[in-house]
Amino acid sequence: MSHSLTILKIGGAVLQDEAALSAALQFFTGMPGQKILVHGGGRKASDISRRLGIAPQMHEGRRLTDAATLEVVTMVYAGLENKRLVAQLQHMGTNAIGLSGADANIILSEKRKHTTVDYGFAGDVISVQKAPLQALLGAGLAPVCCAITHDGQGQLLNTNADTIAAVLAAGLAADYHVDLLYCFEQPGVMEDLSRPDSLIQELRPDSYARYRAAGVIAGGMLPKLDNAFRAVNAGARKALIADLEGLRNGGGTTIRL
Amino acid sequence: MSHSLTILKIGGAVLQDEAALSAALQFFTGMPGQKILVHGGGRKASDISRRLGIAPQMHEGRRLTDAATLEVVTMVYAGLENKRLVAQLQHMGTNAIGLSGADANIILSEKRKHTTVDYGFAGDVISVQKAPLQALLGAGLAPVCCAITHDGQGQLLNTNADTIAAVLAAGLAADYHVDLLYCFEQPGVMEDLSRPDSLIQELRPDSYARYRAAGVIAGGMLPKLDNAFRAVNAGARKALIADLEGLRNGGGTTIRL
Repeated sequence: MSHSLTILKIGGAVLQDEAALSAALQFFTGMPGQKILVHGGGRKASDISRRLGIAPQMHEGRRLTDAATLEVVTMVYAGLENKRLVAQLQHMGTNAIGLSGADANIILSEKRKHTTVDYGFAGDVISVQKAPLQALLGAGLAPVCCAITHDGQGQLLNTNADTIAAVLAAGLAADYHVDLLYCFEQPGVMEDLSRPDSLIQELRPDSYARYRAAGVIAGGMLPKLDNAFRAVNAGARKALIADLEGLRNGGGTTIRL
Repeated sequence: MSHSLTILKIGGAVLQDEAALSAALQFFTGMPGQKILVHGGGRKASDISRRLGIAPQMHEGRRLTDAATLEVVTMVYAGLENKRLVAQLQHMGTNAIGLSGADANIILSEKRKHTTVDYGFAGDVISVQKAPLQALLGAGLAPVCCAITHDGQGQLLNTNADTIAAVLAAGLAADYHVDLLYCFEQPGVMEDLSRPDSLIQELRPDSYARYRAAGVIAGGMLPKLDNAFRAVNAGARKALIADLEGLRNGGGTTIRL
């Protein structure tokens, strides 16, 4: 447990805004200790899909990934967005190395099983390989992980980026002091999105259960928080959900046991 | 000089043919010692370009890379093709890790300077960083390198894949016994493409100069051979230009000092 490791996940809104992205990458560059960046890229993928004549199809916030869509997300996440981030980080002095889950076999997943919805080539994570990640971190490299994984049988799979960040945090928690940071466009988890003063500063399992039962926390925030709790339940020191301002100034919502 | 390192470059025709690609990846998997795979992807990039309404533009066999084309080649080379190869190699038991030149800062290049032709975001290689490549090879990983590099200032650049293979061979020749293999669709360098029995089995600097002066070797073979000689001049043990059959059975054209 000698090293600290911070895993920062940046969302689609940050990727779409050059100034916000640059600020997030500067924040990442300034983070002390070992670090991993995780990113999505769904908005750009939808844009490229449309230009290629492939209509993006979603079900409950998750992309239905047919073969043509898998090509697009592989191109956009692992190619365009990943290499853009790596090149910018190199310029800022961070020795970044871009990875999918197939690279060095770091994240193995399986095609999603669902009784009624065919998610296509969507992957649910099975396991994280610690050894190659530790080798890269130990060599002074900062992995930049996109939301593409593989099944070990040669098939790439589209995987949720929040989940990637959480399973990396969980998988490395036994060997590092892990903090998981979700950077998105809200100040944190809010009791009422229309009231900026309604930020929930801390969530623990009991308070999360109460907010959830009362319907105060709902919708797309639930999978994000489930991922955050997955990480802390596996031994991560804490998770933090915040906007960039909150990450910088100690704001946001802290999730811990 | 304790380890052998084989660098295999596969061309566009191999990438376009599933059976040939699978055979080439099986060959790569069976290669003893440490290894690096280098690939292009120009045909798929031209296909995606056209579907996005961007007409591919070439000058003397080199792609003119405007900003929109750079996005396409980054998507196709570093995303689609690179991750497809990595996932297939993982399935075959090779612990592959996909890289652009920006990843771990392995290949630094500069925007091509040309007095009359604007090649756009085309990169000429300046330097190869040995340390991260040695760290990856030493960790038992097989780098899979695409033909995208960066200038260290945040700009990605489109770079010739044959050149990438040659500069990797040259850059690592002081530390490994390096063999550079160019796998393409011909049996090797031919005196006469219409005569299958006209394979040139060996080229050394003097015989290459004679064939070149006589016009027997010309066109697109010249930059490939210049790259091969660049590698052996820098200390690589040999270069070999062959089709997959030749690579397997000791055929092809061997280039050495």
